[in-house]
Amino acid sequence: MEPPLKGIKVLDFTRVIAGSFCTMYLADLGAEVIKIEMPEYGEVMRYQPPVKNGESGFFITLNRGKKSVTLNLKSPETKEIVHKLIKNVDVVVENFKPGVMKELGFDYESLKKVNPAIVYASISGFGQYGPNSDLPSYDLCIQAMCGLMSMNGYPGMTPMRIGNSITDYMSGVLSVVGILCALRVRDSAPEGQGKGQYIDISMFDAGMTMLENSITRYDITGEVAGLIGSHHPSAAPHNIYHTSDGYVAILIIDNNSWKRLTKVMGRPKLGEDPEFATIEARLKNVDRVDEIMEEWTQSKTSQEVMEIFNTHGFACGTVHKVNEVMESEQVSAREMLVTVDQPQLGKLKIPGCPIKFSETPVQIGEPAPLNGQHTQEVLCEMLGYSAEEYEGFKKNKVV
Amino acid sequence: MEPPLKGIKVLDFTRVIAGSFCTMYLADLGAEVIKIEMPEYGEVMRYQPPVKNGESGFFITLNRGKKSVTLNLKSPETKEIVHKLIKNVDVVVENFKPGVMKELGFDYESLKKVNPAIVYASISGFGQYGPNSDLPSYDLCIQAMCGLMSMNGYPGMTPMRIGNSITDYMSGVLSVVGILCALRVRDSAPEGQGKGQYIDISMFDAGMTMLENSITRYDITGEVAGLIGSHHPSAAPHNIYHTSDGYVAILIIDNNSWKRLTKVMGRPKLGEDPEFATIEARLKNVDRVDEIMEEWTQSKTSQEVMEIFNTHGFACGTVHKVNEVMESEQVSAREMLVTVDQPQLGKLKIPGCPIKFSETPVQIGEPAPLNGQHTQEVLCEMLGYSAEEYEGFKKNKVV
Repeated sequence: MEPPLKGIKVLDFTRVIAGSFCTMYLADLGAEVIKIEMPEYGEVMRYQPPVKNGESGFFITLNRGKKSVTLNLKSPETKEIVHKLIKNVDVVVENFKPGVMKELGFDYESLKKVNPAIVYASISGFGQYGPNSDLPSYDLCIQAMCGLMSMNGYPGMTPMRIGNSITDYMSGVLSVVGILCALRVRDSAPEGQGKGQYIDISMFDAGMTMLENSITRYDITGEVAGLIGSHHPSAAPHNIYHTSDGYVAILIIDNNSWKRLTKVMGRPKLGEDPEFATIEARLKNVDRVDEIMEEWTQSKTSQEVMEIFNTHGFACGTVHKVNEVMESEQVSAREMLVTVDQPQLGKLKIPGCPIKFSETPVQIGEPAPLNGQHTQEVLCEMLGYSAEEYEGFKKNKVV
Repeated sequence: MEPPLKGIKVLDFTRVIAGSFCTMYLADLGAEVIKIEMPEYGEVMRYQPPVKNGESGFFITLNRGKKSVTLNLKSPETKEIVHKLIKNVDVVVENFKPGVMKELGFDYESLKKVNPAIVYASISGFGQYGPNSDLPSYDLCIQAMCGLMSMNGYPGMTPMRIGNSITDYMSGVLSVVGILCALRVRDSAPEGQGKGQYIDISMFDAGMTMLENSITRYDITGEVAGLIGSHHPSAAPHNIYHTSDGYVAILIIDNNSWKRLTKVMGRPKLGEDPEFATIEARLKNVDRVDEIMEEWTQSKTSQEVMEIFNTHGFACGTVHKVNEVMESEQVSAREMLVTVDQPQLGKLKIPGCPIKFSETPVQIGEPAPLNGQHTQEVLCEMLGYSAEEYEGFKKNKVV
């Protein structure tokens, strides 16, 4: 069967991470995604490391399977081209600073007059309304503002950035959810009456949904969540421990498991010892619990600890570096690395699609487009401009 | 207009975070979600802190707006009840360890015989296939295994858990995407011919999609991403700095902004100084850049730094604690805190829905159900059992 979004067309004004991650999923899922880029220069991510032969691996990851059309958004001829595109697409996605699309004349209110059925999603740092909506923003600042950063670090440390752009990723995927819902609403109306709508997603709001139990904890107990590192408020051991060749992540959540573990470790007395036998005792003596665990893990490789734990039904995780992840059998079994062939850069490994469908499997094979690779195709074949008109646009630096 | 998933019914076998986060969105978006819980005890999250009057705030957050039906999954009478439910629903979601649903007789292969149109999503640590699929797993271990943890921490530190269950959240939302796609495929078939399908989501795969540029970086340059704290490989300053009353997150990504910033800071010479004027120089002297920044920020409140930065168009974020987030005007303007009224616990603030639709807005108002609150309603009204039959099930501890 065809991929699930086969037939859906997307006009993609996105850039950097959040927006491009959203349209990456739409493309993975089978939609035809037409990315609008600046003539000559292209999108800013084309210049972000790692770059080889002038092509960015990060850009290729985020933009695989899309088409690229260059368009000078400030040129007077562009309005006509965008309006023709709008009549041909189902979805618009953009992640400019709020207000930019309105200045350009391409905000939802303007474009829905051209095609009332379009679903239009905007992603921004703080959303399209609210007192902070005009603030410049990046994931670093949003992680700080939304509370996530206040929970990442050890007690006494300066709160630390989470090691990836978590609010970009979550807002991007939530936008996909919003778009799919809006398409459902549009398509369930009687034929020809389906209307689109506007979806406003904020990285800040997306971050707020991932604050664990801290919101209700504050509301119920007045306790403010703080830095807790790899510890857990109600489990011990719960930490990352040195092994002879790296680190392992270990957690024990109940007293019976602790008792079993101490036998496996050859220290059964610790399972009965009142200093360690209960969760409360282990939390009180967490530093000593950590010492006991590390004394044991340090004499073994990560793989040995993992095997011993798994044999006994305990959860454990080797702390893998990215190269170890990429080489793991788990990743190849699930096709979570795919190879794309890029004209300038050659073969490149990028992450696969994590949504595994039994009937409509997703195939990733196309790399990201070169800047403007599909401009002529889209303008002439989709929109019906003549070759002369296209050359005129080129000459006037519209495309 | 009605919420976007109005009319969709979900049979929810989920527990803990990932699965419940998925069905939380389905409920937020208007689906009727019927959560199956253990008779008497209920789901394990009902006992997770914060707990007041026997009710967990975290459980209420993750399960708002759902219905609760108790069912002893191992009781022989249960099969008939589940099969009747399956004929009445569109979607099944579960996040047991792979194999558990098969043992119970409720795996996709068994249930699709009862209703070929069901969309069935499974969420697990490593997915339903692959060499690790049988391993016990929690977010802590998955963060370790998928590479995310190797990027969270400062150089020289032990890699640290990201301060929230990031792979639970991302896998939960990706499952929503998969379910919405599968419903689209089902519903676009000619009437009566729409078939469902199986969706397999893994927390590990979800985590792998958030490794920034590290996969292509390794593939192109051989460089293995490591701990970088709040620094950035190609921007400086890019860090969290002390203020007189807290911390701010600051980043400057180009030389022109640096030059403007040094003027704002009253130290214009630093904008021309070859030790600091270029990105390369600032990265080389990043410790001194951090000193310069902190010297300036320490004399001001976080709010003052934020205002100065924003006035000049620079991005900046105050590091908010959760209580500050909850009290912010931004949050109230976007209804990102909603109050639910829980019979045992009273009024409680929980995070709102981050997907803001113009035409089909989402309303969160109902708290999580009490354990088994809807058992009689669902069994008698939806499935047509008589009051006597229901009492019989109760007596036999089936429900």
